Amino acid sequence: MVSKSAGEIGIGMLGYAFMGKAHSNAFKKISYITWPPPLEPRLVGIAGRDTEAVGEAAKRYGYEYATGDWRELIADDRIGLFDNGGPNSLHAEPTIAAAQAGKHVICEKPLGRDANESYDIWQAVAATGVKHLCAFNYRFVPAVRLAREMIEAGELGEIRHFRGRYLQDWADDPSLDTWRFDPDAAGSGAMGDIGTHVIDLARFLNGEIKTVSGFVKTFVEGRKVDDALEAAVEFDNGSVGTIEGTRLALGRRNAFQWEINGSKGSLAFDMERLNELQVFRADGERARGFKTVLVSETNHPFWEYWWPPGHIIGWGDTFVHELHHVLKSIADDTDIAPYGATFEDGYRAAEVADAIVRSGETGQRETISYRT
Amino acid sequence: MVSKSAGEIGIGMLGYAFMGKAHSNAFKKISYITWPPPLEPRLVGIAGRDTEAVGEAAKRYGYEYATGDWRELIADDRIGLFDNGGPNSLHAEPTIAAAQAGKHVICEKPLGRDANESYDIWQAVAATGVKHLCAFNYRFVPAVRLAREMIEAGELGEIRHFRGRYLQDWADDPSLDTWRFDPDAAGSGAMGDIGTHVIDLARFLNGEIKTVSGFVKTFVEGRKVDDALEAAVEFDNGSVGTIEGTRLALGRRNAFQWEINGSKGSLAFDMERLNELQVFRADGERARGFKTVLVSETNHPFWEYWWPPGHIIGWGDTFVHELHHVLKSIADDTDIAPYGATFEDGYRAAEVADAIVRSGETGQRETISYRT
Amino acid sequence: MVSKSAGEIGIGMLGYAFMGKAHSNAFKKISYITWPPPLEPRLVGIAGRDTEAVGEAAKRYGYEYATGDWRELIADDRIGLFDNGGPNSLHAEPTIAAAQAGKHVICEKPLGRDANESYDIWQAVAATGVKHLCAFNYRFVPAVRLAREMIEAGELGEIRHFRGRYLQDWADDPSLDTWRFDPDAAGSGAMGDIGTHVIDLARFLNGEIKTVSGFVKTFVEGRKVDDALEAAVEFDNGSVGTIEGTRLALGRRNAFQWEINGSKGSLAFDMERLNELQVFRADGERARGFKTVLVSETNHPFWEYWWPPGHIIGWGDTFVHELHHVLKSIADDTDIAPYGATFEDGYRAAEVADAIVRSGETGQRETISYRT
Amino acid sequence: MVSKSAGEIGIGMLGYAFMGKAHSNAFKKISYITWPPPLEPRLVGIAGRDTEAVGEAAKRYGYEYATGDWRELIADDRIGLFDNGGPNSLHAEPTIAAAQAGKHVICEKPLGRDANESYDIWQAVAATGVKHLCAFNYRFVPAVRLAREMIEAGELGEIRHFRGRYLQDWADDPSLDTWRFDPDAAGSGAMGDIGTHVIDLARFLNGEIKTVSGFVKTFVEGRKVDDALEAAVEFDNGSVGTIEGTRLALGRRNAFQWEINGSKGSLAFDMERLNELQVFRADGERARGFKTVLVSETNHPFWEYWWPPGHIIGWGDTFVHELHHVLKSIADDTDIAPYGATFEDGYRAAEVADAIVRSGETGQRETISYRT
Repeated sequence: MVSKSAGEIGIGMLGYAFMGKAHSNAFKKISYITWPPPLEPRLVGIAGRDTEAVGEAAKRYGYEYATGDWRELIADDRIGLFDNGGPNSLHAEPTIAAAQAGKHVICEKPLGRDANESYDIWQAVAATGVKHLCAFNYRFVPAVRLAREMIEAGELGEIRHFRGRYLQDWADDPSLDTWRFDPDAAGSGAMGDIGTHVIDLARFLNGEIKTVSGFVKTFVEGRKVDDALEAAVEFDNGSVGTIEGTRLALGRRNAFQWEINGSKGSLAFDMERLNELQVFRADGERARGFKTVLVSETNHPFWEYWWPPGHIIGWGDTFVHELHHVLKSIADDTDIAPYGATFEDGYRAAEVADAIVRSGETGQRETISYRT
Repeated sequence: MVSKSAGEIGIGMLGYAFMGKAHSNAFKKISYITWPPPLEPRLVGIAGRDTEAVGEAAKRYGYEYATGDWRELIADDRIGLFDNGGPNSLHAEPTIAAAQAGKHVICEKPLGRDANESYDIWQAVAATGVKHLCAFNYRFVPAVRLAREMIEAGELGEIRHFRGRYLQDWADDPSLDTWRFDPDAAGSGAMGDIGTHVIDLARFLNGEIKTVSGFVKTFVEGRKVDDALEAAVEFDNGSVGTIEGTRLALGRRNAFQWEINGSKGSLAFDMERLNELQVFRADGERARGFKTVLVSETNHPFWEYWWPPGHIIGWGDTFVHELHHVLKSIADDTDIAPYGATFEDGYRAAEVADAIVRSGETGQRETISYRT
Repeated sequence: MVSKSAGEIGIGMLGYAFMGKAHSNAFKKISYITWPPPLEPRLVGIAGRDTEAVGEAAKRYGYEYATGDWRELIADDRIGLFDNGGPNSLHAEPTIAAAQAGKHVICEKPLGRDANESYDIWQAVAATGVKHLCAFNYRFVPAVRLAREMIEAGELGEIRHFRGRYLQDWADDPSLDTWRFDPDAAGSGAMGDIGTHVIDLARFLNGEIKTVSGFVKTFVEGRKVDDALEAAVEFDNGSVGTIEGTRLALGRRNAFQWEINGSKGSLAFDMERLNELQVFRADGERARGFKTVLVSETNHPFWEYWWPPGHIIGWGDTFVHELHHVLKSIADDTDIAPYGATFEDGYRAAEVADAIVRSGETGQRETISYRT
Repeated sequence: MVSKSAGEIGIGMLGYAFMGKAHSNAFKKISYITWPPPLEPRLVGIAGRDTEAVGEAAKRYGYEYATGDWRELIADDRIGLFDNGGPNSLHAEPTIAAAQAGKHVICEKPLGRDANESYDIWQAVAATGVKHLCAFNYRFVPAVRLAREMIEAGELGEIRHFRGRYLQDWADDPSLDTWRFDPDAAGSGAMGDIGTHVIDLARFLNGEIKTVSGFVKTFVEGRKVDDALEAAVEFDNGSVGTIEGTRLALGRRNAFQWEINGSKGSLAFDMERLNELQVFRADGERARGFKTVLVSETNHPFWEYWWPPGHIIGWGDTFVHELHHVLKSIADDTDIAPYGATFEDGYRAAEVADAIVRSGETGQRETISYRT
């Protein structure tokens, strides 16, 4: 094969299922979609408990070896970036070990199973000086990044409202059995899985949350984690709104919807139409209304890598942007923040999530305070 | 003119502006749209403080006389139905006086300026035995009634979520000056004006609210009433969700949006497209998704009165359905409830509204309890 | 009743069913919605063949008398405006007779059953000097008028495309029996009924049609009129597009959809969402896309008469605008054209319709030429 | 690297720009997305006239070598599949040469620059017995395949209408200069580029076209190819409709929209929302309307390879399905037809395209007849 000029980085992956597939696909596409890649990802090793399945995954994605023990990845000097896509209970120990072994680290969200665990992961990893990204991949949807850029540029003026809800419907079956319903493995249900996505984009687009008034709710009998969360929230910037998540909204498959209203305009979004951003401007024009912007123009975020305008990308492609950002941060020694979520962001999302749970238990508005 | 066979009922109207126009238009259309009318409305008198404007309104809508003093309407024996479309501070005294004079009464929402005043109006009027309707007209949108019928028939199964938000954007101007910003005249801002609409439809579609955790918010400097409200709510039936309202969501003109998710299906609605209902059924069909139902079929609510399918109606037409319901209740001596909102419903909406305000003040989840 | 200052005009209506209802409703609303009315419509007489039904209609809408013979209306000097909402075969004789009796005339579309009959009606009526309007009411949809104003102002630049299709689905039943399927009564099927609407708006928005290449089609066995029409068209201004109509597009109830593309922007519309206009401008903005404009602003066409922004109107309300335009033209002695369709417009639509039929028969592109 | 069990097939690619990128990406993803791949694609060589650019492309996508002469690919025995993504004028000779060298062939659409050239390519290639696919990739959009399956299963009943239009807006600039505007290189403009896509899906979903009445049109001064096409069409099955294409519909980036109406239901689609299919069924249900089906369920076409429901795919992923189909046909020695487009389909699309051009020139309805 013709050799590539970019330096190489060895990848070690923990997990081979949903996130393992999504991240492996992204690393492979980075090599030629985001051309030239900041670093050429070399898929060195993949770990998982089911050795047959992880072996199959290694063949499928082209990892040089498979292992039943993630410690093998940590010990492998060829690996410069450890990517943790395992269940939540496996986030802390391997991620910290990898960082302490000098590897850069990516960890799926939620960072830990609660704020305390998340804090510990962050602190331990930050102490090592490696790059760390908590994989809130929706920051890397072109429409979301465009929204962020518009807000940063002041195009929305002073923000009054953020309303976010992540609606899914796959969990309305008491016989379902996955680690996602096991409190030890997952820590929480809808909250950690999708609630933290809403919290992260709320923070990404609108800044810190000041108070939450809400609760979590379990509908399915016998289920040990929450199915849904509801909260009224206040932000540091004076805006107010709601944060919601549920796995039982029939008909909504992946409807992460948010709307933000400012003194100069509004934006609205739905992940089921992730290539579109609704944009309203109070510009006094007679023909007044929300524009349906197909975020696929050459001057739109990430679009330099893709197709002509109007030729949309998929959900899986958001990981290409995310992991490219990590490789670039490593190659150039630049910060993951503010466009990528660091482990501190992962911790902060967990702090807000815990506050909503606590509000449900105490019946009180909870004020967010972050540890540093 | 060819005489009509139906009995006649004399109408006395208080207010000549927005609601005066909407109600007068409806009374006029009832005569021939909802044919034959249960009772033929005779527009007897109209009252308002600005005698020139009220005189013009009388000419415009065909009232037999105009007056600067609503007491004249109360004293007029030809008037059998008193319709109060005045500012909130003028709801209590004239409405109670009319009922005590034996007239049936309609009162615009919110019933009173708070729960206490609403309760007093309800109690005083109920004691007289007249028919009373609190004009939550959105119950009479065909799509809303269809939703109610589907829910009543069990088509959605067990309800898990109700999310309602009423988004407007007209109030983002500190120089605006109307009685709606005067706490004495209005009692509250967005809460009484649009928040109570959300609360009423929440109750209409999903039953009683058990707790609220939220607050109201004023954005515009110097404004003495609230601009927005946010609440996480629990219902008696175990479902959970949010109730929101704002007058500062740029680009949303009259976006009263709600969604309800059950164990068998979901419904969604937006008042800006009031002829449409989004319907999802978990029927196992391969082609799975929300239907955009144009609620204009001959077997849809209220549609017997209108046009061929697909020929949509307007916002103003919802009042035709509402006031027709009142006339029919009077003619047949049937109950306003459950499809119409009674003054008890008006009171209950106020009780929930007050609880959200109180939650904002105390920082606590508030449990709703109704007086009887 | 308080007397109104405007002059009065006596209305004579032929037809009491669909269009009789739509027009009667409009005349009644003009009195107070488009306040002050240019002329106060007085509902004098209504004619129809079924004397029982027409008698009921007179009572319902408040006509002073009903008659089984339209000649009675012609002979009635109190009637200043004759409104013909009868079947197509009854358009010519009564309308011409009314005009020759000095009455202003409105005639439902299609004007005649073919171009020749339409031409004769136009010529005979024009010779009398009365005002004449062919009731292409969709010109009076606020979104359509806004589109016309934008195009007239050059906001779309040079026009390249007009695509129009009117899709309905009510006729897919061989047992249906109405005058609309009788060639003698109707002249044609989908073509005269809905095809002419498309042709009229094509001309209204984009100017004259130069050539048509197409055909009509009957699907339902035994049906004697066309169910559908398809044509590729060229316009005098150099733009090209399509004109389509069908009564057998399942799921489309009243989907009169059109799109127009120019060198500076595009517009799109669907009658099932008649309060909305889709607007695209090539203004170089980064957030690029079609705006969904809710045509309900105070500076939008006809909106001065209605409700606050966002409170939508219905299909029936378009007739209020149309008939108001007629009354104003009469009161002020101004032209029906260009915003209203004259009988010449009615004739021209028929000429284009005939050309599509002829193209289907000859297999040739047909060039439009209008008689004068 | 862990070796894969599947057999290998060597790929030779002609072209490195838009289609070269799309196809290379697809070959790379097939290895692990459509796991296990029917054959493992080995990217052997890539050819193009600009040797520097083609060298860069080889590095980018991982081809073993780059060459300025496509004949080198033909001569390379390691190449079993020749994929022609070059300009239209380079379709015939290399594709035929490759087939005659015993290689399976893929050729981008349009197959040739007109029906004659397309016919010749088809005949020459078919004579060799290799597999041949004309890359009408939109057959491989999950929503399009689902539509095909529903129609094949009779779910739409007897078809009455097919309306297809492909609207783009990139070409409204006289200074644009690409081979796509060169009649020698491209053969035609919008017609070959996007018109043939509409024709192919019309045939794929609704069968053969019987007659066309229409024309092509050039708007931009000095341009030597067509910018747009318009046609009214009749199908062999008795249905009628329109076929349209334009590169000058401002605001439409990649709006390949089609609608099909049958006696039992309707389907509608827009490529800008390629993950969605609109489905209407005449099932007598009270809640009647088009469903917005997110085509991402486990029982939907191609979805076994992707993500959980609601996690949408992109335009580029349609090529994965298409090229996977080719590899599977080769591996299993099964037919490319009917789900893939063969060169005969490529020829037939050209025959219809030519007929529209001819209709424009003659002013006559043209009847389609295919050579065999």
